[in-house]
Amino acid sequence: MHPRHKTREVRIGTLVVGGEQPIRVQSLCVSKTSDIDAARAEMRRMLDAGCEIVRVAVFDAGDADALGAIKEFLSDVPLVADIHFNHKFALTAIEQGVDKVRLNPGNIAGLSGTFDGAGRERVKAVADKARAKGIAMRVGVNSGSVEKDLLEKHGWATAGAMVESALRHCEFLESAGFRDVVVSIKSTNLEQCVEAVEKFAAETDFPLHLGITEAGLPGYGTIKSAIGIGALLREGIGDTIRVSLTGDKAVEIQAAWDILKATGCRVREPEIIACPACGRIAIDLEKVVAEVKERVKDVRAPIRISVLGCAVNGPGEAAEADVGIAGERGQGMLFRKGVFVRRVKESEMVDELEREVRALASEMTAKA
Amino acid sequence: MHPRHKTREVRIGTLVVGGEQPIRVQSLCVSKTSDIDAARAEMRRMLDAGCEIVRVAVFDAGDADALGAIKEFLSDVPLVADIHFNHKFALTAIEQGVDKVRLNPGNIAGLSGTFDGAGRERVKAVADKARAKGIAMRVGVNSGSVEKDLLEKHGWATAGAMVESALRHCEFLESAGFRDVVVSIKSTNLEQCVEAVEKFAAETDFPLHLGITEAGLPGYGTIKSAIGIGALLREGIGDTIRVSLTGDKAVEIQAAWDILKATGCRVREPEIIACPACGRIAIDLEKVVAEVKERVKDVRAPIRISVLGCAVNGPGEAAEADVGIAGERGQGMLFRKGVFVRRVKESEMVDELEREVRALASEMTAKA
Repeated sequence: MHPRHKTREVRIGTLVVGGEQPIRVQSLCVSKTSDIDAARAEMRRMLDAGCEIVRVAVFDAGDADALGAIKEFLSDVPLVADIHFNHKFALTAIEQGVDKVRLNPGNIAGLSGTFDGAGRERVKAVADKARAKGIAMRVGVNSGSVEKDLLEKHGWATAGAMVESALRHCEFLESAGFRDVVVSIKSTNLEQCVEAVEKFAAETDFPLHLGITEAGLPGYGTIKSAIGIGALLREGIGDTIRVSLTGDKAVEIQAAWDILKATGCRVREPEIIACPACGRIAIDLEKVVAEVKERVKDVRAPIRISVLGCAVNGPGEAAEADVGIAGERGQGMLFRKGVFVRRVKESEMVDELEREVRALASEMTAKA
Repeated sequence: MHPRHKTREVRIGTLVVGGEQPIRVQSLCVSKTSDIDAARAEMRRMLDAGCEIVRVAVFDAGDADALGAIKEFLSDVPLVADIHFNHKFALTAIEQGVDKVRLNPGNIAGLSGTFDGAGRERVKAVADKARAKGIAMRVGVNSGSVEKDLLEKHGWATAGAMVESALRHCEFLESAGFRDVVVSIKSTNLEQCVEAVEKFAAETDFPLHLGITEAGLPGYGTIKSAIGIGALLREGIGDTIRVSLTGDKAVEIQAAWDILKATGCRVREPEIIACPACGRIAIDLEKVVAEVKERVKDVRAPIRISVLGCAVNGPGEAAEADVGIAGERGQGMLFRKGVFVRRVKESEMVDELEREVRALASEMTAKA
């Protein structure tokens, strides 16, 4: 892991993104905001899954006018409005009390895709209003939204073209006196996306929102996002992340947390390590792992738990975990922080493991 | 992507691993080899899922003696025997016709975990027999198997300790005149695992088998493996991979292929990119994507297909794919290699997309 890339802090409602702040998990509510019941139900699921910043899309005046009710429902949870085409929806969104507006420069600054004079005026009007209300903005560039002049200059929506598009908009906002900007540069092309974000990070201190556009269905989409977002996080880049998956938003939110956990960037729950079943397992591993997972699912402490099927590599691996158990015929060896604690009967193994995990969680909470 | 790390070629039965060869997908059959019916059924599933190298674990003489029957079943598919504790099982495995034996040095060279004189003799006996039969060996080091003297020297199973353990065994095999060695260095600690493999790759030209030990249940385990294996593949490191997940082996094999596809290392099937549903979708995206996926599942050509819900970023994104469709109200815009082909009715969209994909696949096959 590289040290974290240094970014400025940007306040988004009750949270701050960037600097030394925890990397935040966000997701997009796909219900129309004007269908308030559907939106509320979806947002409730998102919050339950661990979504920390809720984004909604604004496509028409009805969507924009409904944002006040959405914000009221979300209360302290930051609300971000995704604006498409019409900057007036951004102005309405700000009046309605959102905490951040996300502009796609390519479709706000000019439908022609050129960042022309009239486009600049529209963006400036939004920035002025956002500054007056003390809210943040995201400049969201993607490979499909690069302006025509940059496409011509670079020959294609290359990493360089996306970076130049993002820089242009950030510089314009800066010249308009607006600094509370978060930036995203996304592409369906994983290498191009990673390269663009790396380049942009090397040149600026804007907090970065990471994601791979249109990552697709869970399964492959999860893997592609994990590799791309994971690569950047391991380089110390990224202040908020969104995994984009088609379907139930709880799945993409869980995937975002799993990526943060696997990279060690942020852990909110126990990590359970199980051996891949092999010929030598001495206990019903899959059952034990599933049971342990169920038992500790409410524990909110970053504890490494290992459940290992045998005494071959078992003790060595279990010893590296905070709490570990290695199966033997009819019993298990319990470890805590690398120290052998005691042998336990197979029938009591899960109980004993849970007890150790909860005891450790209490100690960690008491210390915090 | 970095250029591929240069490794020597090592033959494993009908396949060659290393050098410029395709990165191979392998998996571990967890059925006891002596339970031939169960093993055959499991291996059939593994092969159907795209497993290219089948590994089995050998824990007793019965397992070892059954390897001939396993090899007969697998025919041209390379068979690897994982040997634990007793080097005599390795000798038997070689006699039974396996294509590679995998030794865990820490438990072959000496139960004490020290690579002592007697341990060296045992490893040499295996190497001599393997050379005589022209088969390969894997030196498989993991954090739980590092020898005691190295643990003492490094203070812990650090990346450096694992690398030194691997080098020691490779050097010993080299001094015994055995060069057909593939190496793996695995750990449950993602950063430690990546660091160790990077270090080892920088010093040697042995083909590398990648994996994260005990990655756990699908979901989190998949994400952790994708980040770790993906990071190494993006650095050009890795000649064969295994994703270790508890449960159905078809899941881990699919995950391995997905990692190869997402990193662009190896693509065997169409890639379908769908937008994350947002407020603006003009078609029933999830349904269309699922249908397209089903329709092209037998196509074995690396074609990028995009299915996009609207005409906002749709055309731009769709144009980057080999075949793309962007929804409009009641119809879709079809693209091929960035060129707009025609408008199609929503009811015929999937048919038309499939037709374009199959036509392109035929052209690619004809050229190949």
